[in-house]
Amino acid sequence: MATLVELIAAKRDGAELRDEDIARLIEAHGTGDLADYQMSALCMAIYFQGMSASETAALTMAMLHSGEVIDLSGVPRVKVDKHSTGGVGDKVSLCLAPLVAACGVAVPMISGRGLGHTGGTLDKLEAIAGFNVSQDMASFARIVSEVGVCMIGQTGKLAPADKRIYALRDVTATVEAIPLIVASILSKKLAEGIDGLVLDVKVGRGAFMKTVPQARELAEALVRVGEAAGKKVSALLTDMEAPLGRCIGNAIETREAIEVLHGEGASDLVACTLALGSEMLVLGGVAATAEEGTEQLRDAVTSGRGAEVFERMIEAQGGDPMVVGDPSRLPQAEQVVEVLSDQAGVVTAIDALEMGLTSVAMGAGRTRADQAVDHAVGIELCCERNEQVEAGQPLAMLHVHDPIDAEKPALRVRQAFTIDPEASTSQAAPPIVIGEVSTA
Amino acid sequence: MATLVELIAAKRDGAELRDEDIARLIEAHGTGDLADYQMSALCMAIYFQGMSASETAALTMAMLHSGEVIDLSGVPRVKVDKHSTGGVGDKVSLCLAPLVAACGVAVPMISGRGLGHTGGTLDKLEAIAGFNVSQDMASFARIVSEVGVCMIGQTGKLAPADKRIYALRDVTATVEAIPLIVASILSKKLAEGIDGLVLDVKVGRGAFMKTVPQARELAEALVRVGEAAGKKVSALLTDMEAPLGRCIGNAIETREAIEVLHGEGASDLVACTLALGSEMLVLGGVAATAEEGTEQLRDAVTSGRGAEVFERMIEAQGGDPMVVGDPSRLPQAEQVVEVLSDQAGVVTAIDALEMGLTSVAMGAGRTRADQAVDHAVGIELCCERNEQVEAGQPLAMLHVHDPIDAEKPALRVRQAFTIDPEASTSQAAPPIVIGEVSTA
Repeated sequence: MATLVELIAAKRDGAELRDEDIARLIEAHGTGDLADYQMSALCMAIYFQGMSASETAALTMAMLHSGEVIDLSGVPRVKVDKHSTGGVGDKVSLCLAPLVAACGVAVPMISGRGLGHTGGTLDKLEAIAGFNVSQDMASFARIVSEVGVCMIGQTGKLAPADKRIYALRDVTATVEAIPLIVASILSKKLAEGIDGLVLDVKVGRGAFMKTVPQARELAEALVRVGEAAGKKVSALLTDMEAPLGRCIGNAIETREAIEVLHGEGASDLVACTLALGSEMLVLGGVAATAEEGTEQLRDAVTSGRGAEVFERMIEAQGGDPMVVGDPSRLPQAEQVVEVLSDQAGVVTAIDALEMGLTSVAMGAGRTRADQAVDHAVGIELCCERNEQVEAGQPLAMLHVHDPIDAEKPALRVRQAFTIDPEASTSQAAPPIVIGEVSTA
Repeated sequence: MATLVELIAAKRDGAELRDEDIARLIEAHGTGDLADYQMSALCMAIYFQGMSASETAALTMAMLHSGEVIDLSGVPRVKVDKHSTGGVGDKVSLCLAPLVAACGVAVPMISGRGLGHTGGTLDKLEAIAGFNVSQDMASFARIVSEVGVCMIGQTGKLAPADKRIYALRDVTATVEAIPLIVASILSKKLAEGIDGLVLDVKVGRGAFMKTVPQARELAEALVRVGEAAGKKVSALLTDMEAPLGRCIGNAIETREAIEVLHGEGASDLVACTLALGSEMLVLGGVAATAEEGTEQLRDAVTSGRGAEVFERMIEAQGGDPMVVGDPSRLPQAEQVVEVLSDQAGVVTAIDALEMGLTSVAMGAGRTRADQAVDHAVGIELCCERNEQVEAGQPLAMLHVHDPIDAEKPALRVRQAFTIDPEASTSQAAPPIVIGEVSTA
C-alpha cells in the first residue's frame, strides 16, 4: 500500500488517485496521521494538477462522510436547496427560500456569514431582532417540516473535513482550485439531506470567478459531481459585474428581499430570484418547466403566500415576524447621506467589488471571521446600469450613524460608478442570467 | 507590503519573488509567523514554478543567515570543501580530504549520515574506534588549522532553516525541486566559512539525479548560486549507475578509503578522488591546472603525506589513528559469505540502487534518521563492470555476523549483477567523470 507521502507525490506527478486513496488521505487528516503541512502540500499539488471528475467526486464523498448527514427523511416533501458562490448585494436566499417553500418544495438551507467583499445570508437574517440561526438538528428538521423552510448556520458536525481543509486553503493560496471548491461546496450541501441543489455561480468583478469560462468550468464540475452523488443538480451563471439589486448591507438587504416578497424590488434581483426559484421547482418536481415554475413563484408573491412563509419561518426561529409587514422595524442607521453625480451621462458600470469592499469598510462586513458586523449601515444605489443620470442627481445613499462616517465611502462609491457622457441608454440592460448548466 | 499568503500566491502564479520577500518568508518560518503548512505549500509551488537564479541565491542566503556562519578566519590557508549529492559506495571524502589537506588546501568538512540507499561519511568515520564527529566550533577551527582537515557532523546552529524546511520537504513530496536542493546544500556549505566548493553531482540509478540532463541542471544551478554568494565553485558529474569502488558498508568502506591513501584501491574510486581533489586544488589556488593538481595528489599518496594527515585528523578527533596503518583494527564481521555467479559472461551492469538498498537491509544503513547502523557488515564486490566472469566465480562477498544473515542479501546481490554471455570485454569501462560545470 502506498504511503501517504507517495500519494502526495502521485498527485504532484499528475496521477489519478483512486477513490480509496482519497478516502485514506481525508481520514488520515482527520486523525492527524496526515499533518496539516502535508494536506496543504497536497492542496497545492491539486491546484497545479487538477482532479478528474471521479477524483473530485471521491473527495467530495470523503469530506461529506467525515461528519454527520442530516436526516430529513421525516420531511415528506421533496427537499431542494440553493447555493451561491457569493457576491455583492446577493440577498436572493431571503426571498427565494420562502417563495419556493410556498410552492411546495422544502428548503433546508445552511448558509454562511459574510467575509471579505461578499455578504452572508446569516448576517442579513440576524438583522431581524431575535432571529436565531443556531438550531439543533431536531428543530431544523421540525421547522423544515412544519414551515417548509429553515435557514441556519454551519455546524461543526457537518463535513468537519471541509472546515479543516478550508482553513488551510485560506492561508496557503490554494482556495482557487476547482476540485477543492467543488468538494467544499458539495460536501456541506450534501450533508443537508437534500434531494436537489441549484447552484448560482456568480461571474464578474464582484464574484470569485471573474470570467464566464472559469465560471462555466466550476458550474460544470459542480453539476457533474453533484449528480455523481445521486442528487438532482443544475447551475445558473449569473452576472456579478454590478451589485445585485439596490442595497448592500444587512438590514437594508433584508428589507429589499422583503420587497421582492411583496412584488416589488429591483428588476435584476427579481429576475435572479425567479430564475433560481423556478429551477428549484423543476428539480423538486412541482413544475414541469422553468416557465411553469416562474408562474408558480409569481403566484406565491401575488397571493402573499411567500411573505407568509417568511413570517412563519422568522417566528419559528425566534425572530420578529412583524418585520415582513413593516420593514421599518429593522435596524436603521441614524443618517442617510446622498452621493451625487458630478456629471451627466449614462451609468455604464457599477463596480461590484469596490461597492462590496466599501460596505465592509463602513462596518457592514468583516475582513476576519471573528469580527462583528453592523446591521444598520450600508449602501443603497439610486440608479442602475444603463440609466441616464444628471449632474447633481443622487447615485447612492449611504446609511451611516454619523455624517462623518460617509466621507470616505462617498468618494469610493462615486468612483465605483462609470458614467459615460456620450453613451446612449438605447441598449438593453445586461441579462442577469448568463448561462445554464444542466444535464437533466 | 504583501502578506505572506500573497507571496505564496505570487510564487504559485509564477512570479519572481524579490530578495527581501524571500528573506521575510524564511524569517517568518523561523519565528512561526509562517506556519509549516504554509511553508510546505510554498515548497510545492516552487516545485511547480521553479525559481530564478536570483531567487535561488536569495533563498540560499536567507537560509544561511538563519543561523551561525563558522569563523575560520584564523585558519591562514585557503579553505575548500567538497559535497557529494550522495551515492552508493561513495567513501571519497575519507581519502580525498586528507590528500587535499596534504597538498596545502584546508578542508573544513561538515558531513551527513546515511539515509535510505545512500551511505554517509559520518557513519564510515564512526567505524573508527573513538572517532568523535561532534566537535565544538573552537575545536573544529583548531583542528582545521593544525591538521588541515576536520570532519564533523551537522550542528543545529548552522542553517537551522534548512533543517526545518528539509524535514517538511521530506514528508510533503517536495524534495525533488532544484532550487530547494540548491539552497539546502549551499546554505549548509556556505555556513562552513569556506572559500571554495567542489560539487560531486552523482548521476544514475544509485543517485538522486537519474539522468545527465537533470544532473547538469542541478550542477549548473549549484555553481551559479555558489558563485553569486561569492565563492569559487565548480561541479563534476560522476557516474552512479554502479557502486563506487568495491565496498558498500561502513568499516569496509573506511578500509577501502585507506587503501587509496596507500596507493591502492579500485580504479573508479581513485579516478573520482583525483578528479575531485584536483578541482579542489585548482579552486584553492595551489595548482594551476587539474593535471597539476592530480600530480600533487599522487605525490601526497606516494609520499605517505595523505595517510599521515588522516592519522593526525583521527587522533585529533579522538579516534584510533593506528587503523590507517592496520585497517584490520576496524570492526569486522564474523563471517564472509561469497555470492557466486551462476553463469559465464561479461558484467554489463551492477545496480547501485539495489546494492545500496541491500546493504541497508543488512544493517549497514538506515531507513529512518533515528536508527543505528552496524559498522561491520556490508557488501564487497569482487568484480567490476566490463569484466569477464565464469560460472561459480565469486561476484561479491557479504560481510555478516551469521551465515543465515547472508541468505536474502545474496539473492538480491546476485540479481543486481547483469551478466551478458554474449558481450565482449573489448569496450572500455565507462568513465567515472561524465561532465564538468564551471564558469571559472
